[in-house]
Amino acid sequence: MTLPPIISWSPSGAVRILDQTLLPGEVVHRELGTVPEVAEAIRQLRVRGAPLIGVAAAMGVCLAGEGAHVTRDDVDAACDVLRATRPTAVNLAWALERMRRVAGQAGADRAPRLRAEADAIRSEEFARCRAIGEAGLPLVPDGAVVMTWCNAGALATGELGTALAPVYLAHAAGRRVHVLVPETRPLLQGSRLTAWELSRAGVPCTVLADSAAAGRLARGDVTCAIVGADRIAANGDVANKVGTYGLALAARAHGVPFYVAAPSSTFDPATPSGAEIIIEQRADAEILELRGTRVGAEVPAWNPAFDVTPAELVAGYITEKGLDRTRRP
Amino acid sequence: MTLPPIISWSPSGAVRILDQTLLPGEVVHRELGTVPEVAEAIRQLRVRGAPLIGVAAAMGVCLAGEGAHVTRDDVDAACDVLRATRPTAVNLAWALERMRRVAGQAGADRAPRLRAEADAIRSEEFARCRAIGEAGLPLVPDGAVVMTWCNAGALATGELGTALAPVYLAHAAGRRVHVLVPETRPLLQGSRLTAWELSRAGVPCTVLADSAAAGRLARGDVTCAIVGADRIAANGDVANKVGTYGLALAARAHGVPFYVAAPSSTFDPATPSGAEIIIEQRADAEILELRGTRVGAEVPAWNPAFDVTPAELVAGYITEKGLDRTRRP
Repeated sequence: MTLPPIISWSPSGAVRILDQTLLPGEVVHRELGTVPEVAEAIRQLRVRGAPLIGVAAAMGVCLAGEGAHVTRDDVDAACDVLRATRPTAVNLAWALERMRRVAGQAGADRAPRLRAEADAIRSEEFARCRAIGEAGLPLVPDGAVVMTWCNAGALATGELGTALAPVYLAHAAGRRVHVLVPETRPLLQGSRLTAWELSRAGVPCTVLADSAAAGRLARGDVTCAIVGADRIAANGDVANKVGTYGLALAARAHGVPFYVAAPSSTFDPATPSGAEIIIEQRADAEILELRGTRVGAEVPAWNPAFDVTPAELVAGYITEKGLDRTRRP
Repeated sequence: MTLPPIISWSPSGAVRILDQTLLPGEVVHRELGTVPEVAEAIRQLRVRGAPLIGVAAAMGVCLAGEGAHVTRDDVDAACDVLRATRPTAVNLAWALERMRRVAGQAGADRAPRLRAEADAIRSEEFARCRAIGEAGLPLVPDGAVVMTWCNAGALATGELGTALAPVYLAHAAGRRVHVLVPETRPLLQGSRLTAWELSRAGVPCTVLADSAAAGRLARGDVTCAIVGADRIAANGDVANKVGTYGLALAARAHGVPFYVAAPSSTFDPATPSGAEIIIEQRADAEILELRGTRVGAEVPAWNPAFDVTPAELVAGYITEKGLDRTRRP
């Protein structure tokens, strides 16, 4: 893969991110030196994707306090700010919980221990993506056509991605793979991000309107659908980018297996079913404006960031522990 | 309703259209004085919607020849140019066939007879929309929430529309109606056109991303879905704007009745089933560019203008002849 670094430490100790709002037109890195800057980057989707948000937030906690001096209160305050950025992804809450725990246990060594914990979260995330890729590899045979949704690739995780990890490993193994990429309105993570990272990696792909997915599945040439997840309830219901549910319904109508790829940390035992998952509502302007110019009529919009796919539509969950075709890994 | 004229004759005899590519930002009328200008307007979707395309093409045929002198060959050549603009809508072929027949029967009175035939096609279209609205009125009770797709309203027909005709008549009858309007990528006929004409008419509506339709149907507050059609095969399969099929699948999953509203001329007995309907493929740039600026990565797109909804998903066909809940009016 020939992707630029997606998240790293700058020499000054800032969190250095690839600004995903400017892709694919501009490849710009930003150095985030404060907790509010990291929070802003998460809120504005400069860093995005459930796993990467968790990593970014953990790294952001290391910016709490002043220089090497950081108190438990500093960390708690930072976690509160970062936790409030986006409500749906479970990884964010989970990563911050780990950082809070370390801050509580540490003493004068709090700053280096926080940094070590953030690094551990990041490298564990990368290792999980690789394991997800290996677990999903048998689903992507030579000649496979894979439909995905949104961006659950390198840009969402920092390395191989979740939904795209099996695709990248199949490509690396010399298999021919073609990815169908719905553009993913309103923020176009499909056409802007997934298509960009796949083409940078040399994987052939084709972009389509989100609403064309059902008609494409009807053609009968799609091997499987693989999507990511922002939160998976205890019963296996999946919250993912809005439109995932419609894709799952269309996949079932055409006998195309629909897989969800996510680290096991995405499973939330505290949420019994999809009905209890809080769905983030985003601004009307995301729907009614294009690049800052009003295109829609002067009416309100309904703009949920996610929807819920019932477990019964999921052919299998691909986690770092393997492929599980039951309802619940 | 307080809509500006959508299609009319200018005093000079040109075809005067509301340029729908500029809505809702600008309300601009264009005078089309030649057959190629009418063809360009159809091809560029300045006039659009299956019924309105038929009307525009019929009026365009009246521009053939030189002044009052028009030969059968002139008319045949004009029909060939206009027929080639867009392949899917049956109304276009049907309206041009009527114009050809009149041209063949006429002599020195060919020009006025063509004009009379075009006017007849237009006024019959308006009358049909009103009859469609009356046939669909019982489906839109007080308090109804109606999901539609694309634009099958006044802007698609010149007056009440097809899918929106029952909504307009319900609103006129004092019933409270709310319309859910998927934006309809790539050309945003929902957010640009349907939302605009509904709000101009005082009908409350909310725009959503196309991919949010399934999640919205899952909420359980949608009364019914009503869409238009570009062509209906002999077995009842429906070609309509891409995304209609996914909406129909989601509607069935949630027990929401899915209706197709169209003049009976949209039924094409020569096409046995949806499998034989030619689906127009449009330019990649419609998907990968926004307002002339590249936003997608440098990859190809798959951009069908329509998809096919199988008859089994259709709860009823609303035509000028009434509501038919069997497969075939």
